Amino acid sequence: MSFLRNLSNPSSFTFLSRFTTSSAPLRYGGLGPTQAHQKPRVVVLGTGWAGCRFMKGLDPRLYDIVCVSPRNHMVFTPLLASTCVGTLEFRSVAEPVARIQPAISKEPASYFFLAKCTAIDAHNHVVQCETVTEGAQAPDPWKFTISYDKLVIALGAQPTTFGIHGVHEHAIFLREVHHAQEIRRKLLMNLMMSEVPGITEEEKKRLLHCVVVGGGPTGVEFSGELSDFIMRDVRQRYAHVKDYIHVTLIEANELLSTFDVRLRQYATKQLTKSGVRLVRGIVKDVQDQKIILNDGSEVPYGLLVWSTGVGPSPIIKSLDLPKSPGGRIGIDEWLRVPSVEDIFSIGDCSGYVESTGKPTLPALAQVAERQGKYLANLLNKIGNANGGRANCAKDADFGDPFVYKHVGSMASVGSYKALVDLRHGKEGKGLSMAGFVSWFIWRSAYLTRVVSWRNRIYVAINWTTTLLFGRDISRI
Amino acid sequence: MSFLRNLSNPSSFTFLSRFTTSSAPLRYGGLGPTQAHQKPRVVVLGTGWAGCRFMKGLDPRLYDIVCVSPRNHMVFTPLLASTCVGTLEFRSVAEPVARIQPAISKEPASYFFLAKCTAIDAHNHVVQCETVTEGAQAPDPWKFTISYDKLVIALGAQPTTFGIHGVHEHAIFLREVHHAQEIRRKLLMNLMMSEVPGITEEEKKRLLHCVVVGGGPTGVEFSGELSDFIMRDVRQRYAHVKDYIHVTLIEANELLSTFDVRLRQYATKQLTKSGVRLVRGIVKDVQDQKIILNDGSEVPYGLLVWSTGVGPSPIIKSLDLPKSPGGRIGIDEWLRVPSVEDIFSIGDCSGYVESTGKPTLPALAQVAERQGKYLANLLNKIGNANGGRANCAKDADFGDPFVYKHVGSMASVGSYKALVDLRHGKEGKGLSMAGFVSWFIWRSAYLTRVVSWRNRIYVAINWTTTLLFGRDISRI
Repeated sequence: MSFLRNLSNPSSFTFLSRFTTSSAPLRYGGLGPTQAHQKPRVVVLGTGWAGCRFMKGLDPRLYDIVCVSPRNHMVFTPLLASTCVGTLEFRSVAEPVARIQPAISKEPASYFFLAKCTAIDAHNHVVQCETVTEGAQAPDPWKFTISYDKLVIALGAQPTTFGIHGVHEHAIFLREVHHAQEIRRKLLMNLMMSEVPGITEEEKKRLLHCVVVGGGPTGVEFSGELSDFIMRDVRQRYAHVKDYIHVTLIEANELLSTFDVRLRQYATKQLTKSGVRLVRGIVKDVQDQKIILNDGSEVPYGLLVWSTGVGPSPIIKSLDLPKSPGGRIGIDEWLRVPSVEDIFSIGDCSGYVESTGKPTLPALAQVAERQGKYLANLLNKIGNANGGRANCAKDADFGDPFVYKHVGSMASVGSYKALVDLRHGKEGKGLSMAGFVSWFIWRSAYLTRVVSWRNRIYVAINWTTTLLFGRDISRI
Repeated sequence: MSFLRNLSNPSSFTFLSRFTTSSAPLRYGGLGPTQAHQKPRVVVLGTGWAGCRFMKGLDPRLYDIVCVSPRNHMVFTPLLASTCVGTLEFRSVAEPVARIQPAISKEPASYFFLAKCTAIDAHNHVVQCETVTEGAQAPDPWKFTISYDKLVIALGAQPTTFGIHGVHEHAIFLREVHHAQEIRRKLLMNLMMSEVPGITEEEKKRLLHCVVVGGGPTGVEFSGELSDFIMRDVRQRYAHVKDYIHVTLIEANELLSTFDVRLRQYATKQLTKSGVRLVRGIVKDVQDQKIILNDGSEVPYGLLVWSTGVGPSPIIKSLDLPKSPGGRIGIDEWLRVPSVEDIFSIGDCSGYVESTGKPTLPALAQVAERQGKYLANLLNKIGNANGGRANCAKDADFGDPFVYKHVGSMASVGSYKALVDLRHGKEGKGLSMAGFVSWFIWRSAYLTRVVSWRNRIYVAINWTTTLLFGRDISRI
């Protein structure tokens, strides 16, 4: 066991020594600085698109890889909306990190730790971590430290609420598998509760009113999935209440604002046809069973899903590192964090520092995936040039900077229809498509992006059985 | 909406009247007695093997069916152990009630209510119910009543703990999908926790010690699945800690005591070979991280699964109905509850009253399934003879009494091996088999028992992908 070797090596006791003198149980262990006979260590914080794509590309013969995340799998976020209504199973959209980069579970000095990063000491090349536990009888978190040769911060972002009161308490986001599980459980619970004898008409309508706030791709796709579920499955399996269930999508500005205007019009028409009520409005307050809009109108709801984009999370704000305009971790064109050594940042948590003169890239899976791939190649190159160790890459040749090329945007709108926008950027020229062919492209594109063959097969099977037998409605 | 029709019918206000006079919000609604122009109503309590098999067989042209259960699906309990380690997905072993008996979601006066029964008024032919809600923000339960023409009590049983202190707090049972989910989450959590730097050797061993109490088919099958998981998946994907994980099976008496002696020996040999430590012992006390045996020895554990059989649940004990020896609901040979009209009971919650001279049948899925089928035929026969309404079956011809024929017992022991005991009863003669062929029979038998084609396909696919890709280890 490598870290046991480390523990028996005096040089790695730096962080232990402070604590072993007290009589309290030992709470700090750690992985000390790598020695000459070991491979340099890359520590990756986060298991989203950026972190996972990076680990997949990093060469485990050059580096030991240590990943720290509260989640031992990657979530295929573009397919998450489909799991809420049972079109796809939860496991089909989750890929274990150990499958993405097998070295993490096989190499003696590579690890995955179910933990969160609590602080970074850039000067000493050390991250502080704390295990993530849960449940009533959960043990106290266990603290430990990891020395890194290179650090990759890919901690992602968190949903924005614009400071609106009650969002965290009453709305459900759609970013993690447990969010999708919660949405599904609540939806099925409300469907069953609305059948109970003695429930008033008004209460029944409230329970079965699904409100989605935010008209970006996630909000639109979830609304589309929900209306498919209602039109096909609820009508068949909840015949008693089928006329009570409705979906409302609330957006302050434009639906799918980054898409081509013809696609936006198509999406509006398609959603309306599927029974989704589109409301332009600004949410002022979220209460237990209703939301209040800016114009004073009240919208009672049974299920409230919030997807109005993302912003920097508290850990990102707390880090003493350069920042980009907007508060993300600042990076240069090689994805390095300036003014510190050996720290890189990719994905939604990072943005170009002002001096690069480049705008912050959108918080898209596509950007994160491209950055992860670029950085893996960069670190492989540096590793091959013997620049892998801490403070050894100052004079290395970093090669070409990262350049983002937008390939296109896709969004499903339900009823086997999707939008594909292949223009390069918002004002650019290029192909725009909508309809069944786009939907087919959308599905195929995701099938090939889903990393493992196991999940590709499962997604294909889920889609087939949903077509054949309808969606699963057991509430487990 | 039928129950709205009922509510506007004065005769169904019996239970409402007591409550509408107060200023408190209306809490009692209900389905009143059926009228001459309606079909008679069969109320089914429970969605286990007995209740679901009964509903599947009942003719919806003769009766309206109202099912009350805190669970909207049936669980294929014999396959539940396989879901704990990811061999099967949770949804593959759960079948929605609406698929088992579609009338429940389609017929205007048939319903499924996500609720539990709190009391039965046999004289007035009424059950009292209360909705089941959960979570921190759950609304108060909603109470309502349902009048029945025939009542089928299929409420199952609950795990026995023999009054041992700490079992409910620290052990996990294996009866519901959420139990399997909890076991899986805990197992994966412990695997990851044990890799954290600074964890002591002793703590690592404790975290990775899985203890199973109870050597019946469930305990044996779970131990077998667990050792398969360890031998194949943990060795590959948790290489750092693979030598620390162990399984101990504790049984006070005989392993698989109802099986043929040669099969018992085979199971013992097979489990030992797979690394399962078999301990004969009686548990005296269960604490947070260790159990104490009768001989005073302490067994530290990270995961504790309890499967020592079942006994009557509190609701069964509380019902003012005749009882069988052992405290189950008493039934005669036609599965009727004597001394009351129109009440039947099937499955683990029922047992023959003493006057029948028959012993209580074992708490097996097989018994429950056979009773459900028998009772559906019986009520169809009575319904066809115009005996479906309340108090109308006194002089009906009930035909042949229920006779239980034991077909055989099966249990998987892991490593693609299983036991099949085809003797008729414990002392009987008949075929006993063990090994790969038995395993193949075991799997095929379950594949054909899994009710819907959707789930048959999913189980087959789960098994195939597990063989090809190993088990899924994402902790969602």
